[in-house]
Amino acid sequence: MRDDARTVIDRAIRAVLPDRAVRQVLEGRRFPGRVVLVAVGKAAWQMASAASRCLRIDSGVVVTKYGHVMGPIPRVACYEAGHPVPDEGSFRATQAALEAVSGLTEGDTVLFLLSGGGSALFEKPLLPAQELQDITGQLLACGADIVEINTVRKRLSAVKGGRFARLCAPAKVFSIVLSDIVGDPLDMIASGPACPDPSTCGQALAVAEKYGLRLSAAARDLLTKETPKSLDNAESLVVGSVRALCAAAAEVCRELGYEPVLLTDRLCCQAREAGSFLASIARTHAAGGRALAFLAGGETVVRLTGQGKGGRNQELALAAAEGIAGLPNALVFSVGSDGTDGPTDAAGGMVDGGTAAALAARGISLHRALADNDAYHALQAVDGLVITGPTGTNVNDIAAVLLRP
Amino acid sequence: MRDDARTVIDRAIRAVLPDRAVRQVLEGRRFPGRVVLVAVGKAAWQMASAASRCLRIDSGVVVTKYGHVMGPIPRVACYEAGHPVPDEGSFRATQAALEAVSGLTEGDTVLFLLSGGGSALFEKPLLPAQELQDITGQLLACGADIVEINTVRKRLSAVKGGRFARLCAPAKVFSIVLSDIVGDPLDMIASGPACPDPSTCGQALAVAEKYGLRLSAAARDLLTKETPKSLDNAESLVVGSVRALCAAAAEVCRELGYEPVLLTDRLCCQAREAGSFLASIARTHAAGGRALAFLAGGETVVRLTGQGKGGRNQELALAAAEGIAGLPNALVFSVGSDGTDGPTDAAGGMVDGGTAAALAARGISLHRALADNDAYHALQAVDGLVITGPTGTNVNDIAAVLLRP
Repeated sequence: MRDDARTVIDRAIRAVLPDRAVRQVLEGRRFPGRVVLVAVGKAAWQMASAASRCLRIDSGVVVTKYGHVMGPIPRVACYEAGHPVPDEGSFRATQAALEAVSGLTEGDTVLFLLSGGGSALFEKPLLPAQELQDITGQLLACGADIVEINTVRKRLSAVKGGRFARLCAPAKVFSIVLSDIVGDPLDMIASGPACPDPSTCGQALAVAEKYGLRLSAAARDLLTKETPKSLDNAESLVVGSVRALCAAAAEVCRELGYEPVLLTDRLCCQAREAGSFLASIARTHAAGGRALAFLAGGETVVRLTGQGKGGRNQELALAAAEGIAGLPNALVFSVGSDGTDGPTDAAGGMVDGGTAAALAARGISLHRALADNDAYHALQAVDGLVITGPTGTNVNDIAAVLLRP
Repeated sequence: MRDDARTVIDRAIRAVLPDRAVRQVLEGRRFPGRVVLVAVGKAAWQMASAASRCLRIDSGVVVTKYGHVMGPIPRVACYEAGHPVPDEGSFRATQAALEAVSGLTEGDTVLFLLSGGGSALFEKPLLPAQELQDITGQLLACGADIVEINTVRKRLSAVKGGRFARLCAPAKVFSIVLSDIVGDPLDMIASGPACPDPSTCGQALAVAEKYGLRLSAAARDLLTKETPKSLDNAESLVVGSVRALCAAAAEVCRELGYEPVLLTDRLCCQAREAGSFLASIARTHAAGGRALAFLAGGETVVRLTGQGKGGRNQELALAAAEGIAGLPNALVFSVGSDGTDGPTDAAGGMVDGGTAAALAARGISLHRALADNDAYHALQAVDGLVITGPTGTNVNDIAAVLLRP
């Protein structure tokens, strides 16, 4: 079953690789005037590289995470920058992009290739960088979800919340988007640089209040400055998303003989509780005599209670290990499609009915590992880490229960 | 859809009422020798009453919760006692039961009718009552699950963990069990007075360590005294359980035109996270054009973060309200089959796509209500409480997502 799980993981991720997605949109397509490419996000290099093979790019800028530039792209300057906290590299690269799109005319096109991670990578702060980093840090630490984080961050930025598209005018902005947010809300992906912003100043202030953010007077003032509510020069296409990831996983499961059941492609609860829920599904159906694959795509959150090493996918898998303990033919996995789960080198975790006993045999307390947020070391000890390396895509996570008679 | 939900709830609960369950087992059945009835739990009166109509009881004792005795039963003494914390009423009633089963011979039968709540109601502590109550209170407060609570409590008791059946010997003990624990582990239901105890002293000590229980030397010593590991005079039948509750709900859903999908009958994660998970399932399938009913039976736990009024079912429903906000034809409910959710007069809660907006319109913050564990008042304000009154049964909870095209 571990082989089955690896097959499902590898092939599902391959189906949402950014180069395939970009090629599908751009092959045979021609834009009038000049084409300036701006690619932002963890998958920026792959998307830009694919685009440059489909059509002639006049100039361009790639902004991606450190270590994610894989080589030169003709007429495109590639930058690496900080994630999840923006750094000087982010600001420098974003400034280069703004210069590349300045002075364009109505007949020109900005080909904007967007993927997850863009919120940190693409940034021109309206506050001192230190202050922006402090606010972002506060938001991450207090458990704010990504919608809340972006609602605030849009207003502290010269490029987020539709402001980048406005700076590109009168040129057209054609966006191809690899979605890393469940439900594909265009305004939230990378904080929507080329998308009208439906979030309001009132909501931003409510987030600040909810979490008791420490804000300077200048920051508080920015939260009251509204973002563009309409953009007539911008068009967007979502080409990859967790929905596609789930659909691909379901297809592979079916080929392997499992009957796939899509639970959700919008999972959004706490990682360890999602693991318990999936384990309860496994226990109920384990003795049913059918080969089943329950799939849940989305993005869970980790409640920080310790100082250990792990990520939401590893924590989900480890939490499921207790619930499926002793089941002979049950497996639960959870992986991030980007291949990076939390600050670790693993994409996620994989557990089966023997995992809990294997942990106990090594003297590792499952409860303590969860309480310490230390899923990485627990899973590492029992061959439960899923390591893919960086995949080049980023369309959220997928978790699954595999059951065999 | 609210009418549909009420129909599902009412009819599913009716299918697992204790009198129906007891009659199915006892009708036409005869025991040799004397028959002494001991009925323990929230459904004890109903089960005893049904039994006394099926066969001749020579003598007997009922121990149930305050307010749960509905009238006299011939030759049976009915007691009411404390729950969830045992009190003097529990100890007095249990003593009466022990006297009723003393002096029996090998040809006699103790008809032992067991339902949820028995852990508190049926108790002869081996420690001062005050100390037992303190330990039980510690276990409930620290979020220990019922398995952990019972593993400890069995060893502090003269009747739990199989010790009651041993006291009945040489008489036979025939148990009819209405299960309130997911998976129907006989040794855990009411802490298994008539069931060999697979839990060990080692496990009990581990629970004490995990939660840092404050124990006297006497209590710690009792945790090292082993319980019966085999009982040749005891036989048990499970006649009602959350599995039957889910099956009945599925059948009613089908009659109402929904395609039922049983997710699990062993749900065991945090209430509000289960609500989020179910809401994510609703959002994914809401636009699918099918009438669907996703069912999850089991028992969630509440993480106490506030001082409000509520119960696990109400909290699950309220948490789901945010996730399904705006969906036109979606409903989530969660109810306890006993009709009592937490220390409230409600059985649970019911929310739909308009609930979040209705709360906002009344100035009620959904997040604050959840943080305060105050689901009762929030749901009460938007007609979201499910009130059934005490049902007389107790086979865990059922939650459901109902979707219509």
